[in-house]
Amino acid sequence: MSYTLFYAPGAASMAVHWMLIELDVPFEAVLVDIDSNQQRNQDYLRLNPTGRVPTLVVDDTPYGESVALMMLLAERHPGSGLLPEPETAQRAEWLQLTLYIANTLMPAMRDWLYAAKDGDPKGAAAVKALAEKRISSVWDDFEARLLRGQTYLMGPTFGTVDMFAIMLMRWSRHMGCAATARPVLRSYINRICALPSYIEVNVREGLSGWPS
Amino acid sequence: MSYTLFYAPGAASMAVHWMLIELDVPFEAVLVDIDSNQQRNQDYLRLNPTGRVPTLVVDDTPYGESVALMMLLAERHPGSGLLPEPETAQRAEWLQLTLYIANTLMPAMRDWLYAAKDGDPKGAAAVKALAEKRISSVWDDFEARLLRGQTYLMGPTFGTVDMFAIMLMRWSRHMGCAATARPVLRSYINRICALPSYIEVNVREGLSGWPS
Ligand SMILES: N[C@@H](CCC(=O)N[C@@H](CS)C(=O)NCC(=O)O)C(=O)O
Ligand SMILES: N[C@@H](CCC(=O)N[C@@H](CS)C(=O)NCC(=O)O)C(=O)O
Repeated sequence: MSYTLFYAPGAASMAVHWMLIELDVPFEAVLVDIDSNQQRNQDYLRLNPTGRVPTLVVDDTPYGESVALMMLLAERHPGSGLLPEPETAQRAEWLQLTLYIANTLMPAMRDWLYAAKDGDPKGAAAVKALAEKRISSVWDDFEARLLRGQTYLMGPTFGTVDMFAIMLMRWSRHMGCAATARPVLRSYINRICALPSYIEVNVREGLSGWPS
Repeated sequence: MSYTLFYAPGAASMAVHWMLIELDVPFEAVLVDIDSNQQRNQDYLRLNPTGRVPTLVVDDTPYGESVALMMLLAERHPGSGLLPEPETAQRAEWLQLTLYIANTLMPAMRDWLYAAKDGDPKGAAAVKALAEKRISSVWDDFEARLLRGQTYLMGPTFGTVDMFAIMLMRWSRHMGCAATARPVLRSYINRICALPSYIEVNVREGLSGWPS
């Protein structure tokens, strides 16, 4: 069993990187410099034809899609405590929340961050406006969960859903809908960002300054 | 074990409905009339606060998110042959393709179909233009898979990925990027739409006319 993670600091690879650290499994991490468009190099495109990070090479075969990689790692390393295992009472809720993030929050983030690159720059303002509306409604949903007295998004236990949520909340830092502007989310963020594994993934990716 | 599926004809519930038929498990199907906005009724919102279909009630607890429901059913009914089971060689590829559909194709479809309802109608044209671009690039990817000689998207075996792909290709029928306009996709569509379970889900949902 070998893992090589191709990542860019703070990108969609971050949740997978963080999970690998939490799982305490051996892996190699290879930096892809998105600022110099390294994800468009021929060598990288052979690993990941979409030209995106993350890519996780598992025993010589490369795979993409951050949420899929998280699910794969969960299956390969059962019993981590980072998610409800199959056939447990909370499993369906975990699948639902994970897919809600993958299907609603992540695409809206892509829209906001890449509107002018993925589409016509002239339409970017409209795309970003809809994205902010959708992101805000996900924050509403997360707030409601936390206001029910939950410490983490799935209840009393920290896990994969929180890793994705925090990664994506970090992305909102320059948006009108910054998660840190909401006191309930802010205290959730502060709580999680004090965890040793969050500090560790930040050190390894050379990140600092959020939340501050 | 009991299942009640809340569905609207041809909507995101269709892949789940189709899967339930393929699995040959007992379930009840309840029509939600989207045309008369029944998904916004108080009773339905109690089951699914997002006001969307599908909702699957599993032993008295309601869950949403079509892809999550598919994964849940796959776990509850292993050995269906509709997907690679955990710890098989094709599992990672299945997770990746499933999440690619959930993360890229489905949100672009939502954008195209709901741009003016989810966001400012004045921005809808820009949102729809980007959506068509993204949908087309997914069709490119699917075409490339089929051109490699695969009968179905995951290879020689029909499964969950095809159910979602066909449901979403059907949605493209009034779009500039209609999947049926591409000969390679058209022959894939014809092949799958001849399956008894596809015919059955169309009969049960009262659908006809696609592909024609
Ligand atoms: N659906 C993919 C999306 C990954 C994605 O959008 N990654 C961004 C960074 S956060 C990227 O690689 N951007 C570079 C580019 O698109 O050129 C996933 O979840 O892994
Ligand atoms: N992410 C959800 C999306 C479901 C969805 O968008 N359903 C549409 C029909 S295809 C719906 O319920 N529309 C009614 C509305 O939004 O008011 C899923 O995959 O289940």
